Amino acid sequence: MSRALGFQIEGQSGEARAGVLRTRRGEIETPVFMPVGTAGTVKGIRFEELESKDLDAKIILGNTYHLWLRPGIDVIRAAGGLHRFIGWDRALLTDSGGFQVWSLGALRKISEEGTEFRSHVDGSLRFLSPEVSMEVQAALGSDIVMVFDECAPGRASHEETERSMNLTTRWAKRSKSAFNKLQLEREDTQALFGIIQGAGHLDLRRISLEETVNIGFDGYAIGGLSVGEEKSVMFDVIEDIAPRMPKDAPRYLMGVGTPEDLVEAVARGVDMFDCVLPTRNGRTGQAFTSRGKLNIKNAQWTNDQRPLDESCPCSVCRRHSRAYLRHLYMTGELLASILLTHHNLAFFLDTMRGVRQSIRSGDFPKFRREFTERLGANGK
Amino acid sequence: MSRALGFQIEGQSGEARAGVLRTRRGEIETPVFMPVGTAGTVKGIRFEELESKDLDAKIILGNTYHLWLRPGIDVIRAAGGLHRFIGWDRALLTDSGGFQVWSLGALRKISEEGTEFRSHVDGSLRFLSPEVSMEVQAALGSDIVMVFDECAPGRASHEETERSMNLTTRWAKRSKSAFNKLQLEREDTQALFGIIQGAGHLDLRRISLEETVNIGFDGYAIGGLSVGEEKSVMFDVIEDIAPRMPKDAPRYLMGVGTPEDLVEAVARGVDMFDCVLPTRNGRTGQAFTSRGKLNIKNAQWTNDQRPLDESCPCSVCRRHSRAYLRHLYMTGELLASILLTHHNLAFFLDTMRGVRQSIRSGDFPKFRREFTERLGANGK
Repeated sequence: MSRALGFQIEGQSGEARAGVLRTRRGEIETPVFMPVGTAGTVKGIRFEELESKDLDAKIILGNTYHLWLRPGIDVIRAAGGLHRFIGWDRALLTDSGGFQVWSLGALRKISEEGTEFRSHVDGSLRFLSPEVSMEVQAALGSDIVMVFDECAPGRASHEETERSMNLTTRWAKRSKSAFNKLQLEREDTQALFGIIQGAGHLDLRRISLEETVNIGFDGYAIGGLSVGEEKSVMFDVIEDIAPRMPKDAPRYLMGVGTPEDLVEAVARGVDMFDCVLPTRNGRTGQAFTSRGKLNIKNAQWTNDQRPLDESCPCSVCRRHSRAYLRHLYMTGELLASILLTHHNLAFFLDTMRGVRQSIRSGDFPKFRREFTERLGANGK
Repeated sequence: MSRALGFQIEGQSGEARAGVLRTRRGEIETPVFMPVGTAGTVKGIRFEELESKDLDAKIILGNTYHLWLRPGIDVIRAAGGLHRFIGWDRALLTDSGGFQVWSLGALRKISEEGTEFRSHVDGSLRFLSPEVSMEVQAALGSDIVMVFDECAPGRASHEETERSMNLTTRWAKRSKSAFNKLQLEREDTQALFGIIQGAGHLDLRRISLEETVNIGFDGYAIGGLSVGEEKSVMFDVIEDIAPRMPKDAPRYLMGVGTPEDLVEAVARGVDMFDCVLPTRNGRTGQAFTSRGKLNIKNAQWTNDQRPLDESCPCSVCRRHSRAYLRHLYMTGELLASILLTHHNLAFFLDTMRGVRQSIRSGDFPKFRREFTERLGANGK
């Protein structure tokens, strides 16, 4: 563990852990959900709302790929790093860009050295490698940096996955080496997380875990899930791998998931999450509630004076009805996205607060059971 | 003056007046700027922001035409009126729909009885008249209702304007009569404002004023300006008409204008304003500042770490740089609209606060001169 990050477990319930992550930019209670701030903004929400009691997000995520292409590193360097550029004093985690360039599909070419691709912004030819990713993330100045990895498709063969996983391991070594050099040049310090790959193949996942831990990182992520595989495969991997991960380091499940996914992954030993679902679905009219998903477009809400979620204490639920939110959405008003995003993030972050409290108080099994039952009831 | 509204002048500087408008939903200091909430939302901004110290908007405007078509009056009635539908406890003024249907151009047919038009939402044939407009505004439950009027084009001939102005007078009588009947049926009370028309023809404006005052309303508006005429024509009309309007009733200049227009119209005796400029221009990347307009798209802001307006105390200017706002705008992020709208409204409402204070303290001529000089300097 570098001096950039501290981590301490303070409560446990089965495999579920409640802990505290200590960064230069404040303490973060885990399990934690990190809203995704792709291009330097969590879409549709002001930073004041992220900081408000409704949400109180302690850490958000930035996408290296997007920020590197636009506005570019020179602009962010000139501002003094990503925190100062966007006006956010709390913690930031940046991904490595590996997943985004991998998602470009036919538009990218992967070699031992790195990944060549065409920018979706201006079509220019770009090259991303462990070294470039570390340099970009150093310029961003994020509190937690992710290694540059390759992601295998959700249903990749054993052979294809093994090749990809081994490349990720070699890239992890290069990432760490480049990262360490860059840290010598800075006054502050960053933390570096490794990423375990291996798709749905448990033997490869275990090898990836072992090799990643041998390299040694401040935290460990499970990558390459929720990318097209069956949900049962995802949980098989989490259940097998999470408990084998180092106990004294944070465990981060990348890009997952629904509120029920979060609670179930916590039960299997995961500490950190990020996902675009609450923000993206907010913009497409879908609300997450304690009774399941609610599609605000549905005509049944036309005259419904109830809030999105009757047990939600957020400012949107305290003030606005489903009827009003439906009207905003149907009329194409910006406020529909703004309010649904706020509520969805409040629901995700509130769920994690409940998870943390119940682990500490020993009531997590009850919390998990009741949470799942309410979602299943789906009674509006 | 009905019991729905009280108005008192508390300070004067030349023709400029500082007063207080008393509604069932709180006191409103004048001169006042009313943000436009077209379809039941001031576009791009949460009600909490409108109420915050940055803006502290005491009254907003709703558009009868838009709300009547969507979500429709049944939905708003079911919620218990527009205030409860949208979740806004402060004062609301609704326009009559006259200006919107007039703006439809070829899509509408005006007769003595009213205006037939096709809905822009679903193409259905609709009919709006003084009686229908009063009924819709009664259902909306706005604190201030506007008479149903016809607007003559900015450069209309004397003959055309006279015909239109006389129609407006007959519609004003019908509006008042329908309004009075509807008031008998309600527990609360609404106020009704008349509208002075006459395009750029001062003789017709004076006749319209006289006839409107003879009918008798709680307040009087100057309509049909800022619709294509020269700006000098607009100010000639305001300068001639405003001082002749009843001194003991609020004077409302509809649909105007830029910050400098507001200050200049106050100097000529106007008390109330509404305009889409701060919100609409916010969404198209244009900021209003104490040194003039600033187009956030300009490449010159790429690395500019200064706020939009160095003398603006709003939360956007306290937190975010031009470089960041430009990045958000160029990337098509929702937050660009949200933040620029917030700043623009803060600037408009702050300007009006300055106007009010300076009238009360006797410093309005100095305020006006310095405000205009700063805008003219336009030094970034």
